[in-house]
Amino acid sequence: MNSIADAQALDAADTLAPLREQFHIPPGLIYLDGNSLGVLPRAAAARVQQVVQQEWGTGLIGSWNSAGWMELAPRIGDKIARLIGAGPGECVAADSTSVNLFKVLSAALNIARADAPARLRIVSERSNFPTDLYIAEALAQERGLQLVLADAAEDLPGLIDERCAVLMLTHVNYSTGRMHDMDALTRTAHEAGALALWDLAHSAGAVPVDLAGSGADFAVGCGYKYLNGGPGAPAFAWVAPKHAERFWQPLAGWMGHAAPFEFTPDYRPAAGIRRYLCGTPPVLSLAALECGVDTVLAAEPFGGLAALRRKSLALTRAFADGVEARCAGHGLKLVSPRDDALRGSQVCFAHPSIGYPVMQALIARGVVGDFRAPDILRFGFTPLYIRFIDVWHAVGHLQQVLEGGEWREARFNQRAAVT
Amino acid sequence: MNSIADAQALDAADTLAPLREQFHIPPGLIYLDGNSLGVLPRAAAARVQQVVQQEWGTGLIGSWNSAGWMELAPRIGDKIARLIGAGPGECVAADSTSVNLFKVLSAALNIARADAPARLRIVSERSNFPTDLYIAEALAQERGLQLVLADAAEDLPGLIDERCAVLMLTHVNYSTGRMHDMDALTRTAHEAGALALWDLAHSAGAVPVDLAGSGADFAVGCGYKYLNGGPGAPAFAWVAPKHAERFWQPLAGWMGHAAPFEFTPDYRPAAGIRRYLCGTPPVLSLAALECGVDTVLAAEPFGGLAALRRKSLALTRAFADGVEARCAGHGLKLVSPRDDALRGSQVCFAHPSIGYPVMQALIARGVVGDFRAPDILRFGFTPLYIRFIDVWHAVGHLQQVLEGGEWREARFNQRAAVT
Repeated sequence: MNSIADAQALDAADTLAPLREQFHIPPGLIYLDGNSLGVLPRAAAARVQQVVQQEWGTGLIGSWNSAGWMELAPRIGDKIARLIGAGPGECVAADSTSVNLFKVLSAALNIARADAPARLRIVSERSNFPTDLYIAEALAQERGLQLVLADAAEDLPGLIDERCAVLMLTHVNYSTGRMHDMDALTRTAHEAGALALWDLAHSAGAVPVDLAGSGADFAVGCGYKYLNGGPGAPAFAWVAPKHAERFWQPLAGWMGHAAPFEFTPDYRPAAGIRRYLCGTPPVLSLAALECGVDTVLAAEPFGGLAALRRKSLALTRAFADGVEARCAGHGLKLVSPRDDALRGSQVCFAHPSIGYPVMQALIARGVVGDFRAPDILRFGFTPLYIRFIDVWHAVGHLQQVLEGGEWREARFNQRAAVT
Repeated sequence: MNSIADAQALDAADTLAPLREQFHIPPGLIYLDGNSLGVLPRAAAARVQQVVQQEWGTGLIGSWNSAGWMELAPRIGDKIARLIGAGPGECVAADSTSVNLFKVLSAALNIARADAPARLRIVSERSNFPTDLYIAEALAQERGLQLVLADAAEDLPGLIDERCAVLMLTHVNYSTGRMHDMDALTRTAHEAGALALWDLAHSAGAVPVDLAGSGADFAVGCGYKYLNGGPGAPAFAWVAPKHAERFWQPLAGWMGHAAPFEFTPDYRPAAGIRRYLCGTPPVLSLAALECGVDTVLAAEPFGGLAALRRKSLALTRAFADGVEARCAGHGLKLVSPRDDALRGSQVCFAHPSIGYPVMQALIARGVVGDFRAPDILRFGFTPLYIRFIDVWHAVGHLQQVLEGGEWREARFNQRAAVT
């Protein structure tokens, strides 16, 4: 993509282009932060208003049944399942990613160690998203286990051995965009007698995921990134059917009970994935999440995630190449993999000193990416709504910021926001 | 209250009457289920739409700072604190009641057992709301502890001894409306060397609570009942300042980190109550919750919770007396305490056989209470918006349903909804 005409031609040929119409995108904004907070689906505003005014305001308590609130969590879970290679009844939307990770990691440890109590290790990597490590650390402390962290992805296989109970990884790294080979690492875990747990926060809705095909054991993921579910949207939890009923998870709330309205003092877990529900779900946020998930499912007639992935790779490749060509000499270093097979839907550059103000200057120009400590400029490309012309202009703005020294005047007072 | 004229006179004299204008209440509806799902505050519809369209739709990721999303959880927590006898910085709005109970019960057990590892018991009562028992049961299993349940409130003191680590009670019983003496039971727990943890699900916003004055150690509560926060609104967690920083809670997510945006692989808990946050909060639901909490705070110029309590007691007394007077001979038995000091803001009647269809017939008439297995007709009275005329008419409808046998034709297909 060497000219604006190239970008225009690519957009004109883009069969996914109509999907952008699903969203409210502020005029003039080039939003490369859909990996942190997806944009607003047009349907969400009306849907949320319907939930507030009609279902809550008029239907009141009866809406748990008449408006189907009780079924939101499994219904949205079933929809998400279609995006991650899972079947109906295997996934629920609920709680936050952190809380869901606690549930599934706890269950994974129970299962992995049931016949092998000497397996004391949770293996992950130091660059995993911190909240995953915090949750694992807390569980490890609680149970007298060890959290063992690889310094580099290449070191992981060496740590997956007879001491490992669970391999817990985020599929696409939040900071670099590097994507793990889920099939291979899951196989390595299984060969070592361990289980594989995947965090799909930066994968679901962005890259094809085949949980069943890869033989994964557990997964969690985020609702507010590529699923466009809104700020702090509920997350999801998936459990391989063979594991789903083997153990309770410790957040055994009443929504995961086999018969919540019997109000029995003893917990009796629901069949299947429903036992991974805990308390009463935040209905307004769940309703918005469903609209977001629907925007991704809308790509199915256009080739689904395979088509989205092709466009995503073209976008990220064009951006990486464009920055290297047009912004050379300013100290930016590509930290996302050049290899398509290793790259998620984002492109990150490190800069040794001015990453933060450069990003602030870009944001002031209406090109929204984000800065990730210590030195990363992060740009996410949601193929549902990002165009090639956006890539072209984003590179141009970055070039101008760097060449004009505009970053020196950039406001320093805006703090980075949510992952 | 012996006539409709009495009811009208009481409403005319009610200084809290203007507070009803804060709510959207469907015309003709007598809604006695605010203890399950509070009605819609008028401000919430506009506020949620603002969050969706402006903050999410236009502000996008920048709204975490510019719209104050990062501060919602502690800000709402501070507002709730004013309703439960707590100070600023002691309470956060987050997650569900179940999840928050897991956090605070875990911390309470750590603290209670730090110097007394032989204390193996969590003491509660069999009639506690089931999710509380499920969470406690799960934690007890995890840690090799015992959950000991009193069959009756009167048996509790006998179970609070040197084997008890934590006394965990719901202040107002969800099923009967019976209210514990928080001061006395907390004192009993402390005298036995145990800690006291209170679930305020049916108290916050409905009855005066003085956590500091009673010396309570931990509390959780619900956002969608008397706080009018909307379906599945986030809940809250409170920790006495002396305990707040003693231990981590196990759901150590990144929002509870001292510096979430440093993205350090090691957890470093935030100061004070913020370490009881876990993952990214559901912003739409949190925003609605704040509107709900504000409707209760709006009573402060009118005498606050003391005034609400006086009205609540008058409403519940009038309803109980009215049913006993006008519906006598139909087998209803009052199960809520007659003694004002022991009664929350609800009135429950048991019926040996026809509780469920009677409630269905009432709902069909526009008098909404709920049925709680096995035999309870439950009526909640939110003094912010329930009038004495509502009480008068509700009793009249119940009388007509019972006398006319109308319950025989009531639909049996609507299932009870959320607590």
